[in-house]
Amino acid sequence: MPVLTADKLTELSAKLLLAAGVRQKYARLVSAHLVEANLCGVDSHGVIRIPQYVRAIRAGDVNPSADITVVRETASTALIDGGNGFGQVACEAAMKMAIEKAENTVISAVGLFRSFHIGRLADYAEMAAKRGMIGVVACNSVPWVAPWGGRQRLLGTNPICFAIPSGQGRPILVDVSTSASSEGKVRVKRARREALPEGWILDKKGQRSTNPSDLYEGGALLPMGAHKGFSLALVIDILAGALTIGQINGEVPRPFNNVFLEAIKIEGFRALKDFEATVDRLLKRLKACPPAAGFEMVVIPGDPESEVREKRLKEGISIEDSTWEEIKSLCGESGVDCPS
Amino acid sequence: MPVLTADKLTELSAKLLLAAGVRQKYARLVSAHLVEANLCGVDSHGVIRIPQYVRAIRAGDVNPSADITVVRETASTALIDGGNGFGQVACEAAMKMAIEKAENTVISAVGLFRSFHIGRLADYAEMAAKRGMIGVVACNSVPWVAPWGGRQRLLGTNPICFAIPSGQGRPILVDVSTSASSEGKVRVKRARREALPEGWILDKKGQRSTNPSDLYEGGALLPMGAHKGFSLALVIDILAGALTIGQINGEVPRPFNNVFLEAIKIEGFRALKDFEATVDRLLKRLKACPPAAGFEMVVIPGDPESEVREKRLKEGISIEDSTWEEIKSLCGESGVDCPS
Repeated sequence: MPVLTADKLTELSAKLLLAAGVRQKYARLVSAHLVEANLCGVDSHGVIRIPQYVRAIRAGDVNPSADITVVRETASTALIDGGNGFGQVACEAAMKMAIEKAENTVISAVGLFRSFHIGRLADYAEMAAKRGMIGVVACNSVPWVAPWGGRQRLLGTNPICFAIPSGQGRPILVDVSTSASSEGKVRVKRARREALPEGWILDKKGQRSTNPSDLYEGGALLPMGAHKGFSLALVIDILAGALTIGQINGEVPRPFNNVFLEAIKIEGFRALKDFEATVDRLLKRLKACPPAAGFEMVVIPGDPESEVREKRLKEGISIEDSTWEEIKSLCGESGVDCPS
Repeated sequence: MPVLTADKLTELSAKLLLAAGVRQKYARLVSAHLVEANLCGVDSHGVIRIPQYVRAIRAGDVNPSADITVVRETASTALIDGGNGFGQVACEAAMKMAIEKAENTVISAVGLFRSFHIGRLADYAEMAAKRGMIGVVACNSVPWVAPWGGRQRLLGTNPICFAIPSGQGRPILVDVSTSASSEGKVRVKRARREALPEGWILDKKGQRSTNPSDLYEGGALLPMGAHKGFSLALVIDILAGALTIGQINGEVPRPFNNVFLEAIKIEGFRALKDFEATVDRLLKRLKACPPAAGFEMVVIPGDPESEVREKRLKEGISIEDSTWEEIKSLCGESGVDCPS
């Protein structure tokens, strides 16, 4: 497995996107988000996506030179048309707007529709946390998940992410899908010929299954926590897809994300340092909690990503061979120099 | 089991609270919320609470004549001190403020701290939905839940509720705790000498247990959906307890709720009727979903409560004998006439 520094990997990704027709500024921005996901250990949202993105450009599923359009705006809210362009471009712009608005109005919400894949939600939520705000990002996407009690794929894995300033140099980062598992995890299990844990999927007849192949033969992912995950997925579909004049699940023929973003300025409620001190006390108490059987400790959401990030910044990012092969062949097609 | 109309039950409850020192207006308001819970079939938040509330007044845990104080306010946000009074009084005022603000600013957030038990969250979220807004209510409360990986009770069941206008005469109502089960459900299983489903509780040593008594002997509830429920409970503890200058779990010696409320005016994003039409399409597709094995249909969150409410409005509310005995004896102590 080749190991590249974050800078090298960003440069390479940007060159590949540039060669595929993405304008320079956007190519760098999208690549930076992908490599940030790799840095944080979320390789499923990293440069593994480059070949997929290039295919999407070729298929017309994403418009590589789309600009965003603000279609509606108030002092505290906005609605943004992503023009079917790269989600990273549109979502970063959306969170910037939310942050600027919340500076003045304490709380703000921005809806984004007609956006291609936005990647790792945490990137945008963290933008708010760095500015002393609680950042919230939720999105809907292509249907993989059955509603609780049903057997058809009607909802996306509809994740929600919160970034909360903690005063510890890194925010608390909660980034959870509302499905029991991601599709990607099932795919990995299938590749490894492993059985799934109970409660991840239904087969096409609506029976619980532990055979990963059943998902791809008409099955569906199950919601997390039974009806609770279904209920939350429904709320997110509505916030991200209905409120934003975007698309609800099943009404779009191609990959998409509709996004609902919020920023809440902590100083509007209380002094940031007092807020952070309270959060710190809470985190200390959680970390001091004696472990349950089978665990070593309580892990604060966001800490594992921070630790991987620190390590990979120093040691570089390993790219698994199959992804590297795809990238190399894309380099060949595109006339981009491939490092080593 | 006696059966009373909602009106009769509200009148009786109000008299009992009045006799316990609650001023008339607040006694009626609190009673109306309790009976609304009974109407919706959420009997755990209904008049079963009257004896508990009266004991709390006597013990000084709640100040029956407290007024709320707005301690901080902007055009779109407010922070309210509940004065340790009844949560229903404070939370209704808080949501009224959120709604008034969102009329002008599209999105608003109100924090409420030093509040006694607020009862059923849906009541407040529905206030927003009736005004063409998405209502959000989340609160923290006394610790019953272990963080994922830990074995001590450090978090409340920290529920969150969303009410969303649907154009079907009743809102979509999502009201979910972030724990695998409520404490009340474990209590019922213990009373019936039934084993718990897997994954509800830990015993005091941090081992999974299906024996309900273990919860009351130093055990803890588990979060829903493993680390996901823990993460969401943490976010809610911070929104409701830290942002509001309220209390985080474990720092208050008596029963409390700190509350975070939001209102989002749909017309700020798009025409309400278009929003409702989109939501309707989504609900129709969910309802038409063929069932999974073991289910009859997909149930839309909020529908069961609506159906029970319609039935109980017509047929009255049955009060289980043990609660009725408590209420009767409270009537005796308080010199309140008890119907039959």
